[in-house]
Amino acid sequence: MTLPVIGLPEISKVATPELVSTAVRDALIAHAEGRTAVPSPMVLDFPEHSGDCHIKAGYVEGSPYFTVKIASTFASVNNGLMLVVDATTGSPAAVLADEGKLTAWRTAAAGALITDALTPADVDEVAVLGTGEQALLQVLWLQQLRPLRRVKVWGRRPEAVDKLCAAFAQEGLDARPDALDGAACVIATTSARSPLPAEAFRDAVHITGIGTDMPGKGELPPELFAGALIATDDHEQCLDHGDFGNAVRAGVVPDDADIAIGAVLRDGLDRTHRSIADLTGIGAADAAVAAAVVTSVR
Amino acid sequence: MTLPVIGLPEISKVATPELVSTAVRDALIAHAEGRTAVPSPMVLDFPEHSGDCHIKAGYVEGSPYFTVKIASTFASVNNGLMLVVDATTGSPAAVLADEGKLTAWRTAAAGALITDALTPADVDEVAVLGTGEQALLQVLWLQQLRPLRRVKVWGRRPEAVDKLCAAFAQEGLDARPDALDGAACVIATTSARSPLPAEAFRDAVHITGIGTDMPGKGELPPELFAGALIATDDHEQCLDHGDFGNAVRAGVVPDDADIAIGAVLRDGLDRTHRSIADLTGIGAADAAVAAAVVTSVR
Repeated sequence: MTLPVIGLPEISKVATPELVSTAVRDALIAHAEGRTAVPSPMVLDFPEHSGDCHIKAGYVEGSPYFTVKIASTFASVNNGLMLVVDATTGSPAAVLADEGKLTAWRTAAAGALITDALTPADVDEVAVLGTGEQALLQVLWLQQLRPLRRVKVWGRRPEAVDKLCAAFAQEGLDARPDALDGAACVIATTSARSPLPAEAFRDAVHITGIGTDMPGKGELPPELFAGALIATDDHEQCLDHGDFGNAVRAGVVPDDADIAIGAVLRDGLDRTHRSIADLTGIGAADAAVAAAVVTSVR
Repeated sequence: MTLPVIGLPEISKVATPELVSTAVRDALIAHAEGRTAVPSPMVLDFPEHSGDCHIKAGYVEGSPYFTVKIASTFASVNNGLMLVVDATTGSPAAVLADEGKLTAWRTAAAGALITDALTPADVDEVAVLGTGEQALLQVLWLQQLRPLRRVKVWGRRPEAVDKLCAAFAQEGLDARPDALDGAACVIATTSARSPLPAEAFRDAVHITGIGTDMPGKGELPPELFAGALIATDDHEQCLDHGDFGNAVRAGVVPDDADIAIGAVLRDGLDRTHRSIADLTGIGAADAAVAAAVVTSVR
């Protein structure tokens, strides 16, 4: 059996923002319409090595492939790969040794798509909360969808804020350290366990949150959800461990207050209503991106 | 990233019955002692291609590797592989493109070990129920542990019975088509949905069942379990979808009537007591065998 192992250089060549965004958009819509299969993930913990491994599978109906993704973090170092399997024969088709990049890109694509879809068309300034890889990617991928005039960066560590502003400057964006208030669009990308006060988000017409990916985390104050249009990438996941779930458990909104991000992307919505998008990451998006990459490489 | 893909010829060279049996025995004992991690498996269904894919992960504490196993069956054709991951760094170490053979061998090893451990020492005749790959392997692996004088084969299709008898003859075993009664040791390897009558097993001092691997299957009549010593490879799995679970749901035995196969292998037990071993397959055995193979290849 020959199983091609496709490395990051080859993946990077074909996984353009356009290819990734198209695949993620299709996957989110398919997911909203019940045309995906996403089993509950598996987790293995290795406390003696400060490590864990998350295993996710996903399939978009009609796709030539399904995927199994291994994503590990040991002593803060990410690793992993995606196994792509032929969905008509069950035969392994390829290993994408993507070093976790496809996950980062599909997260950036999903966030950028819904941020653009729910932020008023004339808004050209965004505030980003956090200074990690996704703080950079969410804004850069949004920039592909709409021109951005200015970026405000808020983070707890000033040196990390300065570094991120420099990275934005390199991409031709006017970025500066600043508070979140005053911004009509806020993108939250932190792994915070307790959110900033609601006051910090007071001028936001749209907020996208992508950092709350497990129970115990929360970066958006629950009271923000009251009266907001709420869009989730996966109802059950966001209820279980997203900021939406935190708001439900706080008694701010009922547990059926959300609509599917895929439905928003498909149908469009009034962008002037105050809105929050909660993303926890769906295996169907991994599957769609991996399938698109393997199809393009071949 | 270079990820070695190790094919079946190379795997077959190192995966001797001795290596596989040692790894499986250690894994069963570790599992009985709570020193393994085995998340709930994931399943994807592809009804339009008569296909499904089972994804299992496993880890034995202290092992250098953990594994993620993909096992698919499409239109009755099995396929799959094992991904072996470094348990101290989370870095993928190797792909074992074993074509499902390691699963077949670890199933044979686990069955043979417990059949030998619970069958009276002087028994040298076994009856096998079923005519598939495991009917052959269970007996051949048992033959590695104790000399067998004769094999009785019972199956629904006479031509399959004859073919299996011929395969045994090729391995130097005296095998013939026959009913199960009269045999002190019975190995059941079918995917039956309704069992044979209890009368068929009337002379069995020990029975090993390895075919009941999902809800709705059952190859051992529940009443057999009354008064028998019951050993399971995984209490929860066997309760959920093994023959043990069928007996519990039939009200024949309480749900805590079983002991762990690993404990029997570790401590030994009185072989003259009537006993039943129910095996549903554990991810920790996959992990142990894969780790042993990768360690030997390197």
